[in-house]
Amino acid sequence: MAKSEKTVTACLVVIGNEILSGRTQDRNVSFLASRLNEVGVALREVRVIPDVSETIVQTVNDCRSAFDYVFTTGGIGPTHDDITSDAVAKAFGVKNVLNEAARRILFDHYGDENINAARMRMAHAPEGAELIENPISKAPGYQIGNVFVLAGVPTIMQAMFESLRHRLVGGAPVLSRTIAAGLPEGRIAIGLGELQEAYPDVEMGSYPYFRSGIASCNLVLRSTDEGRLAKVADELRALVRDAGGNPVDEVTG
Amino acid sequence: MAKSEKTVTACLVVIGNEILSGRTQDRNVSFLASRLNEVGVALREVRVIPDVSETIVQTVNDCRSAFDYVFTTGGIGPTHDDITSDAVAKAFGVKNVLNEAARRILFDHYGDENINAARMRMAHAPEGAELIENPISKAPGYQIGNVFVLAGVPTIMQAMFESLRHRLVGGAPVLSRTIAAGLPEGRIAIGLGELQEAYPDVEMGSYPYFRSGIASCNLVLRSTDEGRLAKVADELRALVRDAGGNPVDEVTG
Repeated sequence: MAKSEKTVTACLVVIGNEILSGRTQDRNVSFLASRLNEVGVALREVRVIPDVSETIVQTVNDCRSAFDYVFTTGGIGPTHDDITSDAVAKAFGVKNVLNEAARRILFDHYGDENINAARMRMAHAPEGAELIENPISKAPGYQIGNVFVLAGVPTIMQAMFESLRHRLVGGAPVLSRTIAAGLPEGRIAIGLGELQEAYPDVEMGSYPYFRSGIASCNLVLRSTDEGRLAKVADELRALVRDAGGNPVDEVTG
Repeated sequence: MAKSEKTVTACLVVIGNEILSGRTQDRNVSFLASRLNEVGVALREVRVIPDVSETIVQTVNDCRSAFDYVFTTGGIGPTHDDITSDAVAKAFGVKNVLNEAARRILFDHYGDENINAARMRMAHAPEGAELIENPISKAPGYQIGNVFVLAGVPTIMQAMFESLRHRLVGGAPVLSRTIAAGLPEGRIAIGLGELQEAYPDVEMGSYPYFRSGIASCNLVLRSTDEGRLAKVADELRALVRDAGGNPVDEVTG
């Protein structure tokens, strides 16, 4: 049964011209979606926005009032285009200040001879921010209010997430079952719609794909209740068989 | 030189629980970003939202007033969770009606014996919509106002984009140069910031990465002016060399 009745929600704000230009393929969305689900937090929206201060301020403020948690990725390095901390401070109406703990981490890592004004940008965080450890490249992320500010490089973002996950308070994780139908979705759409009406508490999705020109689909069931999921999966397999398909359970994580 | 002084902007709205659950890795963002740039349209924002009617209506309305073009992907198939057309019609304050041209396409494709109520959902579009051809699986997308409604399956989305691209009126395509620096970005961040101040019309980005624990970065220059780009690239290579790096031009498309 659910740990909590309320769905705990999150939004991811990806800050980066490199995603919007098509240069870089995002790898942070699917990682964060899966990990958040493990701790019972539902990723409800993703926004990819450019390195433009007003856009970041507006988006962070819109999202932190609409969702329980907000995660940002990108824009916390040493270069001129790393403007996330300035913008997040503005969004919260505080100053972006030298963080003494972050300063010590960076001096320890780079040594006196390699620290410079650019790298010191990474020792700044909005007033009142609580640091998030970065075991890879040391420059920390941070949390302010319900907003978690993380690096954009996937390996660093992932390590930061492991450092912060104990701070998240979620509900029950959503469990899922995937059944490959072996027929086009148009052949079972009516029955699937009726099944969804009969079990409104189990979310049902149909995801079509084409392989060698043959249309097929994966049917996905989602619920926090394992027993309920098993029952509906049985009915769904029967439905697929009746329509002439060959239901195959996909092993999911 | 630029075909137009004004930047033509676009927003992509990805409609799909499967991306937000982490089940499916998005492949539409980078494709659309690259193709839009070829026709001089700048992708300025991406939103990934769930299959929830009110969210789709609100997002489509926010985005179509904020950007020159809006593209949606997903939710136009035959199953109960395909609610994009109903929601887009609501956003425009019109009805989602049987489109006679779409009906003919689907009857031709499926034949009388295989058409059913579920598949007929794909013959519906908001009143006043102009169809977009789907050479793969036939069920069309459509345009209404400045909003283009496309399939979520990448191969179909891509084919639909080729069918509609002649309708887009863009400015000058943004050209880019990528230079691998061969040193950590913290070593050239100050010089890069000064270069950006000297050439405010050329966008400069630094994208760090770690390979076998070694920090390095790619430096990306973007401008609509080829000559300007070549000049700044020369200065950037000199800057990298002065800092002890080994600048290598990356071949980009």
